[in-house]
Amino acid sequence: MLMPTLKDIADHLGISKGTVSKALNNAPDISDALRQTILETAVEMGYKQKRTKITELKKLCIIIENMEYDNPSQFGYDIVLGFRKLAETSGFAVDLVSVTPEFQKGISYEIFMLQNNYLGAFAIGLTLSDPWMTEFETSHTPVVLYDNLIRENKNVACIGANNEEGLYQSVAHLKSLGHTKIGLLSGALGSYITKTRYKAFFHAMKKNDLTVDKNMVGCSYFISDCTQKHLPKILAAGATAIVCTYDLLAHAAMIACQERGLSIPEDVSIIGFDDLPICAYTDPPLTTVRQNRTEIGKCGYYALNSQLNHVYIDTLLLHAELIVRKSTGEVRPA
Amino acid sequence: MLMPTLKDIADHLGISKGTVSKALNNAPDISDALRQTILETAVEMGYKQKRTKITELKKLCIIIENMEYDNPSQFGYDIVLGFRKLAETSGFAVDLVSVTPEFQKGISYEIFMLQNNYLGAFAIGLTLSDPWMTEFETSHTPVVLYDNLIRENKNVACIGANNEEGLYQSVAHLKSLGHTKIGLLSGALGSYITKTRYKAFFHAMKKNDLTVDKNMVGCSYFISDCTQKHLPKILAAGATAIVCTYDLLAHAAMIACQERGLSIPEDVSIIGFDDLPICAYTDPPLTTVRQNRTEIGKCGYYALNSQLNHVYIDTLLLHAELIVRKSTGEVRPA
Repeated sequence: MLMPTLKDIADHLGISKGTVSKALNNAPDISDALRQTILETAVEMGYKQKRTKITELKKLCIIIENMEYDNPSQFGYDIVLGFRKLAETSGFAVDLVSVTPEFQKGISYEIFMLQNNYLGAFAIGLTLSDPWMTEFETSHTPVVLYDNLIRENKNVACIGANNEEGLYQSVAHLKSLGHTKIGLLSGALGSYITKTRYKAFFHAMKKNDLTVDKNMVGCSYFISDCTQKHLPKILAAGATAIVCTYDLLAHAAMIACQERGLSIPEDVSIIGFDDLPICAYTDPPLTTVRQNRTEIGKCGYYALNSQLNHVYIDTLLLHAELIVRKSTGEVRPA
Repeated sequence: MLMPTLKDIADHLGISKGTVSKALNNAPDISDALRQTILETAVEMGYKQKRTKITELKKLCIIIENMEYDNPSQFGYDIVLGFRKLAETSGFAVDLVSVTPEFQKGISYEIFMLQNNYLGAFAIGLTLSDPWMTEFETSHTPVVLYDNLIRENKNVACIGANNEEGLYQSVAHLKSLGHTKIGLLSGALGSYITKTRYKAFFHAMKKNDLTVDKNMVGCSYFISDCTQKHLPKILAAGATAIVCTYDLLAHAAMIACQERGLSIPEDVSIIGFDDLPICAYTDPPLTTVRQNRTEIGKCGYYALNSQLNHVYIDTLLLHAELIVRKSTGEVRPA
């Protein structure tokens, strides 16, 4: 992609080229809000400031694993963009670093950061078994973890959506539609976030005065195990609604139900988590819990910048929001 | 207090009057960091911008109850100042509003905010029984609560220090000094924060593989009940260390122990929570958990401003930090 010109940015926003120039050159006679919008749009369109005046650029990195981010339909795209929008308009350069467990075994986090002159990192998609996760318990270079938990180290901040709130809203929504036999399909409990959502489902059922039937709960790393093994068991146990801990699993569960001749939501209501862009286009469109990924990226930058300024944020959670579409409906008559 | 002149501010910071003027007039040729320092200092010294150019001032309020904030030795002072530093330098006017339960009964929160043109509120010191707390569960006008918890309303953000982390550090510190018989003195469980710290103590003991002796736990709203009724019981049960859920209680417990002929920390170790300014000057100086109050005020503004920009922060916690002084020491030989 060619770097956009000032005119491209101006046309995109429907403003004059002069105004764009003012924003990029930090002129005082435009509002902070407009300046920020222009700078964010410039980042989004791939504009790079010529940094001739800056002798040494401050650098941050986004450490990514287990997450796609190359195009807008992928989960990581908006998170990365939200982080970059704030970081780059604040004068940081941001590198994206894809890592694997093997890579982490080969070099310590702190040495990696030092060698590359990174002041801090935003880490997304890491699992509990990643070598650097152990290092984060005692590391000194600031790191912000998305959907992961490290406690007792002031150089680590944890951010994400409030999963408890999300699952509570899901169960309350199903209850309001008359459902009491509610099942759970979950990924394997090897990641912090899956564990958290799994527990949150049980809390949510309890807070809604509903009982969990063990035969209506299934977990597996493989979606095929969930749909072929756990789903038939959950349906046989009499579930009229199924909560899934992530959207792709919910989508697969809908298809598997339909293949068995069940209608969604007439026979079974299904609900996801994350609100991936695909959710609006599934058949039927999926009711799910939204994580605002752009804002998660922005909060990631805010928390990291706070650490760099010696304000040690421990936890930053965004409100979760239930998005009701067509995959949930009133319970079928008994 | 007279409003300071530009020269007063310049002298205070050891910079030129011209630089102060540049910062106050938003001139482009000084750094953002220096501008922010000058603006924050101006707020701190009581300087008010002449707002002749601004026809309509954006207004926020700090709702305060049960908390003193008039001078730097009081708990609320730095919280209020931290909030004002960021809010006022961002162009908001900030009013301080002291409330009582009676006042809240007389007018609803939302009507109060509307009548006074407040865009949002930072509420500190409210208790679970305050009428407005019930209203916050469904209110639409953004509010940020310090050390209080309202869930499931996206217009409410909750901020504070991580109390779990603070209590964990306190117990781990005592354990490292050889203490296993650790008591708890707590305020009454009528406030969210006291409940949270009370529970966090039990979690912290468990995580440190220590057992809580019921005879070593006492709660009361009145400090005198704690020192005259609970403290003797806890000491009789054999406690060698006592965790107190707030500094003034810890200070009173130290004095009561000393009046009974016990030395701190030789006979009993005592630990507080909050790090009030007084803690460095008690006899002996008090080991306690620091809440960085200026940063809590700043995070309060950050969370409120986020709500105003439709980024719905649910929770923002700062790391707690154990400050080891002289009121804790190695366990006495058995």
